[in-house]
Amino acid sequence: MQGDHLIDDVICHLEREHDAILERLNAVLRLPSVSTDPAYADGMRAARQHFMDRLKAIGLEHVQLLDGGGHPAVYGSWEHAPGAPTVIIYGHYDVQPPEPLELWKSPPFEPTIRDGRLYARGASDVKGSTTIAVETVGAFLAVRQRCPVNVKVFIEGEEEIGSPSLFRIVERHRDLLQADALISADGGRGSTVIPTLNTGSRGIAWLEVSIRTASKDMHSGRYGGALRNALHEMAALIASLHDSEGRIAVANYMEGARPLTDRQRADAAALAIDEDAFYAELEGVPRGDENYSVVERLTLLPTIDVNGMWGGYTGPGGKTVLPCVATAKLTMRLVPGQDPQKAADAVRRHLHSRCPKGARLMFSAAGGGSPASSLEAGHPLLVAAEAVIERTTGRRPVHTRLGGSIPIMAIFKEMLGLDALVFGFAKPDEDVHAPNEFFHLSSIPEGLASWTMLLAELAKFKPHQFRAA
Amino acid sequence: MQGDHLIDDVICHLEREHDAILERLNAVLRLPSVSTDPAYADGMRAARQHFMDRLKAIGLEHVQLLDGGGHPAVYGSWEHAPGAPTVIIYGHYDVQPPEPLELWKSPPFEPTIRDGRLYARGASDVKGSTTIAVETVGAFLAVRQRCPVNVKVFIEGEEEIGSPSLFRIVERHRDLLQADALISADGGRGSTVIPTLNTGSRGIAWLEVSIRTASKDMHSGRYGGALRNALHEMAALIASLHDSEGRIAVANYMEGARPLTDRQRADAAALAIDEDAFYAELEGVPRGDENYSVVERLTLLPTIDVNGMWGGYTGPGGKTVLPCVATAKLTMRLVPGQDPQKAADAVRRHLHSRCPKGARLMFSAAGGGSPASSLEAGHPLLVAAEAVIERTTGRRPVHTRLGGSIPIMAIFKEMLGLDALVFGFAKPDEDVHAPNEFFHLSSIPEGLASWTMLLAELAKFKPHQFRAA
Repeated sequence: MQGDHLIDDVICHLEREHDAILERLNAVLRLPSVSTDPAYADGMRAARQHFMDRLKAIGLEHVQLLDGGGHPAVYGSWEHAPGAPTVIIYGHYDVQPPEPLELWKSPPFEPTIRDGRLYARGASDVKGSTTIAVETVGAFLAVRQRCPVNVKVFIEGEEEIGSPSLFRIVERHRDLLQADALISADGGRGSTVIPTLNTGSRGIAWLEVSIRTASKDMHSGRYGGALRNALHEMAALIASLHDSEGRIAVANYMEGARPLTDRQRADAAALAIDEDAFYAELEGVPRGDENYSVVERLTLLPTIDVNGMWGGYTGPGGKTVLPCVATAKLTMRLVPGQDPQKAADAVRRHLHSRCPKGARLMFSAAGGGSPASSLEAGHPLLVAAEAVIERTTGRRPVHTRLGGSIPIMAIFKEMLGLDALVFGFAKPDEDVHAPNEFFHLSSIPEGLASWTMLLAELAKFKPHQFRAA
Repeated sequence: MQGDHLIDDVICHLEREHDAILERLNAVLRLPSVSTDPAYADGMRAARQHFMDRLKAIGLEHVQLLDGGGHPAVYGSWEHAPGAPTVIIYGHYDVQPPEPLELWKSPPFEPTIRDGRLYARGASDVKGSTTIAVETVGAFLAVRQRCPVNVKVFIEGEEEIGSPSLFRIVERHRDLLQADALISADGGRGSTVIPTLNTGSRGIAWLEVSIRTASKDMHSGRYGGALRNALHEMAALIASLHDSEGRIAVANYMEGARPLTDRQRADAAALAIDEDAFYAELEGVPRGDENYSVVERLTLLPTIDVNGMWGGYTGPGGKTVLPCVATAKLTMRLVPGQDPQKAADAVRRHLHSRCPKGARLMFSAAGGGSPASSLEAGHPLLVAAEAVIERTTGRRPVHTRLGGSIPIMAIFKEMLGLDALVFGFAKPDEDVHAPNEFFHLSSIPEGLASWTMLLAELAKFKPHQFRAA
């Protein structure tokens, strides 16, 4: 990496500040900011105030709460690098509930260090990585009074409850949030030992389909045997979506999908999981094309899944009804190259072609969704992150992909057109959402140095290059 | 028919009484006895009182209300024919709601004669036929002070709402209701022109099955593609119950089922319906074995129908869940010879044999149900009814069967062991449950004469002969 010496001053500053940064992280970990439970309103307010104060202290401007009707987000920016890219740095200040409390070895909101680990609710998810990102920006401003790129810090308060008002926040503050890319401090590393770099996630398409076989539900005694049963027909339709080996059996569904590359398969192999243990833990029954590993099936192949299905009488006891309508909700997980509309259309055509004469298919929610996200070769986010990881770990990172899109990334992509880099420092062993959540203390200096390098690397690109894909 | 002259006196009496009987029928038709609507409580009470009074007036004893917690039944008996069979005569005094009122040409509770038809709610279903049965008993007692058989009249008040307390009534009054056979004035004739005789109905078996494919619902993004989806598996199981032509594809399901006889097929052909009109009216899509007519499929062949099915997320919008449990409620309609337990077991074995390894099937409601009911050749009810119909119409009746069991017949069979004869005089064109319900006036003398002959014919048998089947 050329020009490493250019950031030594910032990294040195961060090393000197390590204990102060840890104390600031501890301070926010003591604030019980559980977004799902109104009993924690004080903790939520205090956590917001913590980050508001810190953003102001490090020299960000326009520091404010962005309100969308729920828990507001904390915002602040530094925009004095003309010609340089502008990045939104994303984190969140809310945490999961700490229950069951009796399983915690130290209280969830009393950060405690044991064996090189910082135990507290939110340490891993994601106050640790959020603090790292904020402190890095602070170090640049402290040492140099400037940042390599323009920065907009956006710290959400509703990530753990599904970001219900994020859409409205972005809609209301669209101008404020104009940027060239999104960098998320949320979203962890793919392995505790192997350096990984997430390059995207599967897309999604939605489809709801109903089949009608008669004008109304009939008595199964009076009419059973001569009339089609909507549930039988829906069952046959759903069963036809896959072959007996679990492979998708919908013509043209794969249209546009890029074949797996050797690199992708090698990366998946590098992160191969113990498949028996995987299924044993979930008590799950294996499915899918056995020519592919579980990791490949979960991240690199598309799916069609029925998320819900119903028809007829579903209450207690029995009712001798011959159902005239059955409904199924489907989602499709898409790989790069698949168009959500075309994928949904292929499923629609498949269902139409198998619908018995006289029965009627009705679709809703067709055509929604979003394509797979992907940082393609040469994308500044990918080039910069890869350089940083190689430099800090000495190894070329294994590329990973996520099976499902991260909601906030999908919203920023859809509403603001931003590609996103996942650059969190959580590791997969840190018991997020569970008792005794912790953050590896070693991730703090590693994260601070990595974020410093990342911001410097991003400065090597022009804003328009982030939109090339 | 031997001994016709023996009942001439009774028939003559009934002919003389015709106008008085019609007036008594009109009197009860004026009482709005709508069981489903508490607003009609007075009408229900009055209709009960009408039949209580009438049973007493004709000389029945032990006249009383049988209470099961809902609308009570009216009961009265005459038991002075030692050695002769004892029959329960079934009717009901409740009627369907009259709405929509604006479609009635004359008010629903003002019986009105037009063109040989008596228009009123309940005229056909089933105050007309109930009155005929009661008046016949009354005529025997008036003319001869005795009845050919022992008679227990049971007039229910909840037939139109599914007989919710009939089970409890029978349970509480089991001793009172001991008998050799049931004769139902409810349940109409199979044709407006061809004499028909119902010989039974399909039986039923119940089964509820769930499939579990994992310990809990999963996120479809994170796990989709490598884990079985319970809804997909249930769909495949349900789809496997029938072949592509809609024929049942369950091994051993037909075990014990008697093949259709030439007589059965000829009878079904005699009552062939306009199949195109049948499907057009229901807006229904045809299904089933095309080697059989619709009438045969509806009454002489067994079925397997899913009455309800559900799993995953069924609320508004979408949810990206990979369902771990799916459930289906099934009923099987059974033909004579099929055992409900064995039929359900065959379906269970079929599902087990197709359940993917690792998934778990859970059954409930297995083994319930009741076999098809059937008046076999030589059964006194069949012999007697056939003789009466041949005598009154000059034609051998076409045998019909019902697709589904009549609840009250199933309850009396199960709890009291009684075979049943359907001997109602409603015709299929009488708009039951609809505006302008009517009763053909000609059915009154026809019904009175037929019931007179029937009671006389039944007296030719010994009580034990009714239980031979």
